[in-house]
Amino acid sequence: MPRPVKNVLFIMVDQLRWDYLGCTGHPTLQTPNLDRLAGRGVLFDRTYVQSPICGPSRMSYYTGRYVSSHRSTWLMVPLPLSERTMGDYLRENGRNLSLIGKSHFLPDRKSIERLGGLSDPDRSEYAMEGGFESIARDDGIFGRGPIQTKYADYLRANGYDSPNPWHDFANSAEGPDGEILSGWHLRYAKEPARVADQHGETAYTTDRAIEFIEGKGDDPWALHLSYIKPHWPYVVSAPYNAMYGPADVIPANRASSELTSANPVYKAMADRQESREFMRDEVREAVVPVYMGLIKQLDDHLGRLFAVLEGQGRMDDTLIVFTSDHGDYLGDHWMGEKELFHEESVRVPMIIYDPRAQADATRGTTSTQLVESIDLIPTFLESLGFDGAPEALEGKSLIPLLHGKDVQWRETVFSELDYAFHADVRKDLDRSVDECRGYMAFDGRWKFIFWEGFPPMLFDHESDPNERVDLGQSNAHSAVCKRMEKVLFSWLRGLKNRTTVDNKFVEEWRDKEFQIGQW
Amino acid sequence: MPRPVKNVLFIMVDQLRWDYLGCTGHPTLQTPNLDRLAGRGVLFDRTYVQSPICGPSRMSYYTGRYVSSHRSTWLMVPLPLSERTMGDYLRENGRNLSLIGKSHFLPDRKSIERLGGLSDPDRSEYAMEGGFESIARDDGIFGRGPIQTKYADYLRANGYDSPNPWHDFANSAEGPDGEILSGWHLRYAKEPARVADQHGETAYTTDRAIEFIEGKGDDPWALHLSYIKPHWPYVVSAPYNAMYGPADVIPANRASSELTSANPVYKAMADRQESREFMRDEVREAVVPVYMGLIKQLDDHLGRLFAVLEGQGRMDDTLIVFTSDHGDYLGDHWMGEKELFHEESVRVPMIIYDPRAQADATRGTTSTQLVESIDLIPTFLESLGFDGAPEALEGKSLIPLLHGKDVQWRETVFSELDYAFHADVRKDLDRSVDECRGYMAFDGRWKFIFWEGFPPMLFDHESDPNERVDLGQSNAHSAVCKRMEKVLFSWLRGLKNRTTVDNKFVEEWRDKEFQIGQW
Repeated sequence: MPRPVKNVLFIMVDQLRWDYLGCTGHPTLQTPNLDRLAGRGVLFDRTYVQSPICGPSRMSYYTGRYVSSHRSTWLMVPLPLSERTMGDYLRENGRNLSLIGKSHFLPDRKSIERLGGLSDPDRSEYAMEGGFESIARDDGIFGRGPIQTKYADYLRANGYDSPNPWHDFANSAEGPDGEILSGWHLRYAKEPARVADQHGETAYTTDRAIEFIEGKGDDPWALHLSYIKPHWPYVVSAPYNAMYGPADVIPANRASSELTSANPVYKAMADRQESREFMRDEVREAVVPVYMGLIKQLDDHLGRLFAVLEGQGRMDDTLIVFTSDHGDYLGDHWMGEKELFHEESVRVPMIIYDPRAQADATRGTTSTQLVESIDLIPTFLESLGFDGAPEALEGKSLIPLLHGKDVQWRETVFSELDYAFHADVRKDLDRSVDECRGYMAFDGRWKFIFWEGFPPMLFDHESDPNERVDLGQSNAHSAVCKRMEKVLFSWLRGLKNRTTVDNKFVEEWRDKEFQIGQW
Repeated sequence: MPRPVKNVLFIMVDQLRWDYLGCTGHPTLQTPNLDRLAGRGVLFDRTYVQSPICGPSRMSYYTGRYVSSHRSTWLMVPLPLSERTMGDYLRENGRNLSLIGKSHFLPDRKSIERLGGLSDPDRSEYAMEGGFESIARDDGIFGRGPIQTKYADYLRANGYDSPNPWHDFANSAEGPDGEILSGWHLRYAKEPARVADQHGETAYTTDRAIEFIEGKGDDPWALHLSYIKPHWPYVVSAPYNAMYGPADVIPANRASSELTSANPVYKAMADRQESREFMRDEVREAVVPVYMGLIKQLDDHLGRLFAVLEGQGRMDDTLIVFTSDHGDYLGDHWMGEKELFHEESVRVPMIIYDPRAQADATRGTTSTQLVESIDLIPTFLESLGFDGAPEALEGKSLIPLLHGKDVQWRETVFSELDYAFHADVRKDLDRSVDECRGYMAFDGRWKFIFWEGFPPMLFDHESDPNERVDLGQSNAHSAVCKRMEKVLFSWLRGLKNRTTVDNKFVEEWRDKEFQIGQW
């Protein structure tokens, strides 16, 4: 057994697709700091999230369970009170999990009310935060009305005076006559944000992390450092707003045939406003360079953070993960935003740095094993030398892969979508709110997407790695679809549902006392 | 809309199989009081429980959800704290649900501890009782050691002096020299219990119910009256112990071919001790008459209860349900106990009496619609005029059937088993505790039983209503098996998992504020 690591740093960014880093192959975007981290760790190049949208994806990261298991199926759906989180698993082993930035966690207030409230204020706070010790939580996305957040206070303290400086400064630009050009409109993307880079969300979040890590000194810690960017609003401070231009934008991955012979669910999603916007070249040419600028900004600030880690000796004792909660279509497949299961949406970058000698042999390598977001909790627990919870956790520790072990690995990754909250799509498709489920099963070659009530989608990565040809209704591929349906059925049956007792209890139980006696 | 009923009386007995009542066709057993109730109500003759064993079956009754949804998969598995119960649904509408007798509810203490405890003592008590207001809870099955229960105190107060009068008197007989003949041994079944009938568990439970109903007067109420009998220990007070003899026992439903060409899971269960006991004729001849005596005793005491209901005017304003949590093999199919999916185990009697004029047309009729235990909560809510919870409840109200409406009904019933706690079976079959699941799908003709890791079982009720010929491995029936697998897959996908928000919230949600703006 290798010695445990001392600390865990779990860095997540929001809405960063897998192919928008230097080390994952972007031809014009520069991310030297993350590339360097990948050079010292392993790049897990085929990492998939359990739902390609913030809330459910994050709840899978934070519970180690598929969406059908943790049941927070969409942004607005609180995590049921019974679900244990990453913070719980660490705390059971005596370690707090601190949070700086976004978690998207919604507490199950209805259950708490039904139960008459919690008695311990500390634990109540903890339950309301999903097991995180909130150092500086900031979920990032606000409207235009007044807000009270630590970051808003920080902006006001730095001279950005407004009831909502998040909107009016950090996420808006300024017109020639001083008017606010809201970042909610894509047309202003190219203009610089009204905050200096040093006061932007990414800088602020990084500053808090540096404070936290320096403050801990040699004490052990676990930190979820969770950036809101490059999530929209697509606005970035100078000089990042002008760092990339239309010439740096990779061509849209789309074919006109995708829209003409479309699956009904895909068609309804491609008909949403954000998709219609991103179909237009002028939108891509304005927005994508800014998306790239936001990533470059992130990389620069991560460079500051990594320097502190190095200076403090933390690169010797800290497991570092860098990943994202989902991608961003950016006009590919004629889509904006995320939620569907194309690579641009469901595949994320994942870099893991393990400081221990056992990981030396894999440094700088790329793993093509199929990885899921639910793998992180088992990875953290194993790296820290903590116990797991096989009755609930559905992922696999990545430590054996990091240590170059020859292990049997999974053959298929799964992802889910509940599109019930999209009234427009639901209406288009004539579905009730209980009938809006989709599932993806991807085995490295075949990506099979099952839609409740509609034909499936199917992509063959061997002949069509860009996923432009949907074979879901091709007679020649019905056998593949049938096989993948079986895989999905088997997966559904295997979801872990006996979570209120641990497996050891089950294994050791004997019913002698309460069994019918012998004759 | 018919006027609501005033009260609900939900009577459950434990381990009563569907065919051990006069009105369900038993040729020698007399149950005139229940037959009369069936004559005034509707006998739902094809009612199936969601798992053929107490805990998970009851949690399906009490949550209105399939086992994979409520996740209390076996006797020892607490119901997750997030699951709402029958008591919660009634309480949300201002009505308490009182409990007399057994609930088998296990609180999710681990979650409560993790959350630091509940603040309101009343609600805490309520959570610990699964939403029941416990008037006289008694789960019935105890070992031989000292016990403190209300019923034990009652026995002691009535002269049955012992640290465990439940075992030493109510569930034991007496030898010629005054020695205790424990009811845990089947060979003593025929001897009279050491309590007078008037002090037996069934009499005691009935007395509490009568007190409760008389005490309520004209106030509205809802009562779960839950008898522990005819569950083993198979011991009954005189004269019931001698009321039936071997000549009254219907022949065992079994064929030698069942054991010789057996499904591995069935074979392993048939190899358990209780099955080996009940295979023997001398056991059946000793035990089955006592099982019948326990049922006759129940019927007599229910006669007392029904007379009180009549006398108090409650037959005019009370919806009455009589049912069971599962059956008892009693040697049929070479099995003892329950858990597998033969009719003897998974099918239960269900009688519903609706006092309202709208139900007059169906009185005394038998419904052959496929009914599930999860249908009761929607039935109660509709009868009381209360709101339902479509985001969580998976059953269908039976009121339309009771009122003779022509409604589209379900085509398949489902039941589940998690046999992981049976170390002997698990070892026989070489399964880990996560691999012990089985599912039944029955459409009125085909009963399909899917076993994880083993061939399925299949019975054709058209040619083999007694389920003696397992067609699960017959090539001629592979198409049926495939079709039923699809039904099971579809059912699994449809389980309700978005339970922390209600459907109305989903339907009405609009994401205008947080959507990417237009160009």
